[in-house]
Amino acid sequence: MLGIGDDTALLRPKPGHETILTCDWFLEGTHFLRDKHPADAVGWKCLARAVSDVAAMGGTPRCFLLSLALPSSHTGPWLDEFLGGLRRASRKFACVLAGGDTTQRKEILINVTVVGEIRSGHAVLRSGARPGDIIFVSGRLGEAEMGLRILKQSKKIPVPGNPLTRKHLYPEPRIVLGQWLAKNRLASSMMDLSDGLSSDLHRLCAASATGARIEATRLPTVSFTSSLGRPRVHPTLLALHGGDDYELLFTVPSRKAERVPRYFEGLRLTAVGEITSKRGIRVLTESGDERALLAEGWDPFR
Amino acid sequence: MLGIGDDTALLRPKPGHETILTCDWFLEGTHFLRDKHPADAVGWKCLARAVSDVAAMGGTPRCFLLSLALPSSHTGPWLDEFLGGLRRASRKFACVLAGGDTTQRKEILINVTVVGEIRSGHAVLRSGARPGDIIFVSGRLGEAEMGLRILKQSKKIPVPGNPLTRKHLYPEPRIVLGQWLAKNRLASSMMDLSDGLSSDLHRLCAASATGARIEATRLPTVSFTSSLGRPRVHPTLLALHGGDDYELLFTVPSRKAERVPRYFEGLRLTAVGEITSKRGIRVLTESGDERALLAEGWDPFR
Repeated sequence: MLGIGDDTALLRPKPGHETILTCDWFLEGTHFLRDKHPADAVGWKCLARAVSDVAAMGGTPRCFLLSLALPSSHTGPWLDEFLGGLRRASRKFACVLAGGDTTQRKEILINVTVVGEIRSGHAVLRSGARPGDIIFVSGRLGEAEMGLRILKQSKKIPVPGNPLTRKHLYPEPRIVLGQWLAKNRLASSMMDLSDGLSSDLHRLCAASATGARIEATRLPTVSFTSSLGRPRVHPTLLALHGGDDYELLFTVPSRKAERVPRYFEGLRLTAVGEITSKRGIRVLTESGDERALLAEGWDPFR
Repeated sequence: MLGIGDDTALLRPKPGHETILTCDWFLEGTHFLRDKHPADAVGWKCLARAVSDVAAMGGTPRCFLLSLALPSSHTGPWLDEFLGGLRRASRKFACVLAGGDTTQRKEILINVTVVGEIRSGHAVLRSGARPGDIIFVSGRLGEAEMGLRILKQSKKIPVPGNPLTRKHLYPEPRIVLGQWLAKNRLASSMMDLSDGLSSDLHRLCAASATGARIEATRLPTVSFTSSLGRPRVHPTLLALHGGDDYELLFTVPSRKAERVPRYFEGLRLTAVGEITSKRGIRVLTESGDERALLAEGWDPFR
């Protein structure tokens, strides 16, 4: 409701709705590299990943606050390009800039708070999974991690259109899918895949006080291309542990599972396993044996 | 409404109220010094300064999100002490932790988003000052800056009870005063004094498309004590340019000015000048001449 000027933003909540709040660090060195990531992608991604948390609840993003710390060397063309990517993401996700805080700093530091909304009582939480529920994921897993590896090997800053790095640089939060699953009360639990399936499924199961069993052969993996180069990583390992995909991980009670389409607006939805009452996560490997799946996704404290 | 676990917080807005959103950096080296500022004060102040933006609108703080990046060396006693200060501030301001994001980092980085609320249409903005309005400030100005100087000169980390550094380390956002001014429709414009009167009054005037004239002899300055040491700075300069006081700067239409008490719950309220239609800010000095007041408060880009 206010323009830039006041230190605060004013928001008129929609009646009958709850407000969703989420914030995310996006830090040079930790989450992106100044010399490898185009400023345009930094702008897009810092908003996309925070919006993804709103999507993972079934909510609708409304506005965001941007906290930005920059070196004075980056207030010219870098900032313009950053704001360009941010603006495109803002339009695409219908999530408007409502305020923020800026300061000067040697390193590029970004923090984004996203405010969303959802009809009261409709939010899908991590904690709702029950034994017997079918575990689904959207899209293909490991694609962002593959893009990151390509990016690190490459000597040049990638062009925005490169399909191999697109998912890593310009992730698309699954807003419409999340809303559809929440509105139709299909998902018993949901979260986004930010740190990798093996880490995030552990979190969902911990919140739901359950375990899970997944089948490696059912994972929607990336198809490799010759340009990936070495070292070649197995697609299944990328799908299990690769982070940054921002796909949705959700569970559906088995009696409702047939209502989940194979494709939702062109996006593949795949059943990869089921929730178990026995704690721990087991994976049925391609060779037919069953093993414990450890959380080996991205962890800033490791 | 949710415990820690999901990546997001859910908030049920109060009917007939608007939501206030604000975020603030609090960065080692820029906003505090690891070796000079007690962890307890860092915890208190990172929340207090963000809450102050809600107070400056006349709002009521409800909850906050904490984004924290820490070196692994600071996850033990430092973090405990930090959380202790944060918890005290959270209770004092009735503003509960609703979520956040944590990561590892060489430097201590903090970003706080505060969510508040205010009855629809009651928010006091920066832009409402009109020529002839009387300019008020709460408390005494320059006290936090004086505390910072003492802190920098001191060899030890100060004890929490030291009255000379209390205002710098443990500022108190003027929540109740802000609410009272908004509810009684006394303030035509308002903001908090975070960067110093000379800088902040320029912002208020710019937002209101006015100028201002203040009288130096009326400024509520600090009373110096012998322990301050040298270099001795003139109290008027501290009051004009010292930052971090988190007092309220507000304007009141002259016909309502007599309804502003000299003390509000023990806090001094002082008329220091008036809003003018002529742009620019003039100060009537102690020697009786009138000069332009330049924005010489704190500016991270200078």
